[in-house]
Amino acid sequence: MKKDLISITDFSKEEYLRIMELAADFEANPNQELLKGKVVASLFFEPSTRTRLSFETAINRLGGRIVGFADPDSSSATKGETLHDTIKMVSNYADLIVMRHPLEGAARYAAEVSSVPIINAGDGANQHPTQTLLDMYSILKTQGTLDNLNLFMVGDLKFGRTVHSLLQAMSEFENPIFNFIAPESLQMPRGYKHHLEERGIRYFEHEEFTDIISEADIIYMTRVQKERFSDPIEYEKVKDVYILNKAMLENTKPNVRVLHPLPRVNEIATDVDSSEKAYYFEQALNGVFTREAIISHVMNLK
Amino acid sequence: MKKDLISITDFSKEEYLRIMELAADFEANPNQELLKGKVVASLFFEPSTRTRLSFETAINRLGGRIVGFADPDSSSATKGETLHDTIKMVSNYADLIVMRHPLEGAARYAAEVSSVPIINAGDGANQHPTQTLLDMYSILKTQGTLDNLNLFMVGDLKFGRTVHSLLQAMSEFENPIFNFIAPESLQMPRGYKHHLEERGIRYFEHEEFTDIISEADIIYMTRVQKERFSDPIEYEKVKDVYILNKAMLENTKPNVRVLHPLPRVNEIATDVDSSEKAYYFEQALNGVFTREAIISHVMNLK
Amino acid sequence: MKKDLISITDFSKEEYLRIMELAADFEANPNQELLKGKVVASLFFEPSTRTRLSFETAINRLGGRIVGFADPDSSSATKGETLHDTIKMVSNYADLIVMRHPLEGAARYAAEVSSVPIINAGDGANQHPTQTLLDMYSILKTQGTLDNLNLFMVGDLKFGRTVHSLLQAMSEFENPIFNFIAPESLQMPRGYKHHLEERGIRYFEHEEFTDIISEADIIYMTRVQKERFSDPIEYEKVKDVYILNKAMLENTKPNVRVLHPLPRVNEIATDVDSSEKAYYFEQALNGVFTREAIISHVMNLK
Repeated sequence: MKKDLISITDFSKEEYLRIMELAADFEANPNQELLKGKVVASLFFEPSTRTRLSFETAINRLGGRIVGFADPDSSSATKGETLHDTIKMVSNYADLIVMRHPLEGAARYAAEVSSVPIINAGDGANQHPTQTLLDMYSILKTQGTLDNLNLFMVGDLKFGRTVHSLLQAMSEFENPIFNFIAPESLQMPRGYKHHLEERGIRYFEHEEFTDIISEADIIYMTRVQKERFSDPIEYEKVKDVYILNKAMLENTKPNVRVLHPLPRVNEIATDVDSSEKAYYFEQALNGVFTREAIISHVMNLK
Repeated sequence: MKKDLISITDFSKEEYLRIMELAADFEANPNQELLKGKVVASLFFEPSTRTRLSFETAINRLGGRIVGFADPDSSSATKGETLHDTIKMVSNYADLIVMRHPLEGAARYAAEVSSVPIINAGDGANQHPTQTLLDMYSILKTQGTLDNLNLFMVGDLKFGRTVHSLLQAMSEFENPIFNFIAPESLQMPRGYKHHLEERGIRYFEHEEFTDIISEADIIYMTRVQKERFSDPIEYEKVKDVYILNKAMLENTKPNVRVLHPLPRVNEIATDVDSSEKAYYFEQALNGVFTREAIISHVMNLK
Repeated sequence: MKKDLISITDFSKEEYLRIMELAADFEANPNQELLKGKVVASLFFEPSTRTRLSFETAINRLGGRIVGFADPDSSSATKGETLHDTIKMVSNYADLIVMRHPLEGAARYAAEVSSVPIINAGDGANQHPTQTLLDMYSILKTQGTLDNLNLFMVGDLKFGRTVHSLLQAMSEFENPIFNFIAPESLQMPRGYKHHLEERGIRYFEHEEFTDIISEADIIYMTRVQKERFSDPIEYEKVKDVYILNKAMLENTKPNVRVLHPLPRVNEIATDVDSSEKAYYFEQALNGVFTREAIISHVMNLK
């Protein structure tokens, strides 16, 4: 049976650990000709330069060849073809499909249609599982473990798919503590808190972004976007609250690392970049190794 | 002298058969490093995802490298450069040019200017010869022969370049019978019927799309596009007539296969997809092998 | 310390000559697997098909893999990410960055941010150093030397960055003579003439484009663009003056060659194409070898 990666919950804890192990192997030796003679379709029905470049670098480092499109205007969708027919056709001649689509559920549907593995590179507000796996690899590398960590998530916790998936994945490990820092209207949704409660996992909610971060092992920053607020006045009130600067890191633990899925706009001041605790650019690089690992795993390459 | 493929009539019957033989060879062994060290320019002056992905897969499977553009906005044309100068420049550093252009005759003109072979990936309403060759390969694979076949063509036979070229190519083989099913305003043009008459080839014209298909070996479906009708009322009258559904295939011959150049919109109901007689997705896959064969042939690679 | 190519003046005369030597080596043997296992980011924040295809051909002939984007709409810039963050991220996983940007100074800034070499493929009106090096290679190939040459520059000498950089580079060689042919409002800027005066290099200015070119070794044509004129009447007066046709080449020296950075619009009549003195298409081909040489030089590949 073919293996897809559509949602982070498709993988078991054992698979997470297998991906981590493979990512470390690719980090030590990024160029491995495991995809030699294979063609990978990179179908971006919605533009996403960062994710596309990361995947295409991973595919190239594995020795694969790439066909595809970078944005919907040059895609077949413009001629009225259904997603069903596009995936049916492409899966007939590619060995793997990496796809990003603006609609939730598109990747799952594609996986049902396709005869080759599908890796979801983001489907609307739903899932972006390869981001979560690279976040986990970044946590493991910097903390040496995925157990017993105090994870702070900051910013838009209501609409941010990265924090939702990371919460789900990390709740598989031993004894995490979650701290959610968000404006009232962008708090972590009830369902995810319930998920933690069911597992007996502790979490705390805060509206202030202050020295409470002194307990953090990981500070996961996300962007507070104006368009998420129905009331512009409310946005004005909070827009400068959830910004991390270097001074705020002074009393944090030595092992703490700041993550961000990128692109950032202004939610991390540039003076943080020079801190040893800043890790977001290394995190992006980890994305290449993690995606090599994911490709290798779904295609059983090693 | 360099070899180009601009029009389906550029090739002799012997060359058609040679392409079929090569395509079978590539189907058995798609990855052959015959283009190693070669650079192929893929110039799409008009977007066509399907054709471009198929060609680029073929080039990659042959071990070639690709440069080019996927749509005219990112092409030099926007800076006022003539087609002459673009082709002159590109032919100076690529080993082969695959090009699609919205203007009829553009590919022929490019072949005159270029010092390297040109393969026409579609020039306006004129020619799309690689589609015809993959159609022929699909017919040969499913029928075991290109002789003595009863070919039904359905839909827009007036403007559809694929049916025109297929008619020309198939009329080189033994004893074909053509059946044309189209609304009155979209019938096969006089010139093509004359072409058949000159060769003593039988053809029949129908406006109804009914159980007359019980005689077919091949049913070649095409799209009836609203914009082809000057009178919208006439379109409304015929738009649901030329739609194939699964029930209509019940009394057809066991060997019949349904082809379509894709993308389909609604002219083949999705319930046909599960029929053994549906062949359009396999046909798309045959495009990769056929294009490998065509590239190999024009460049004398084997 | 990493080596970048941002401005033509970044390189010494010795480095120019080293690039020429390497370009000749790549012309003799274009396919060398020096970039095997390397990933090159090709970041075009502004479309430029010609330059991009030339670079991507060079990278492919060196056996490298390419990731990137061809126009700004599909780039991360559209999500509000700063150039700093884009370059920081990409330099983390690519081995070399080739970039074009509409803003002057963007390439220099990127070089400061990046941990891998940056090659400037044009930053606004500022610099396009790889064009200058391919111009020099074309001059060397056709004249056998870079010393003692009489160089005519024709057209828009005020805004044309290619003529400015070529002037700077050629003034490093022995005893050049410059002749500037331009309408009054598009003459060579004072600063560049001062640069020549300081070095005791002779130059002459002309408004007429006549048989004065009989002395030329190189005629470097550029485009006179309507949008450069504040007064449309002045444009109308000069627009047909700076057009080279074949008859004008009759009394020129046998060794003279006509160069043009392309694309041309009408400033070189098409009857010139058949002249032995026309060299602009070969010049474009030289661009591939020169870019292989530049990549090889900045990355210390041989």
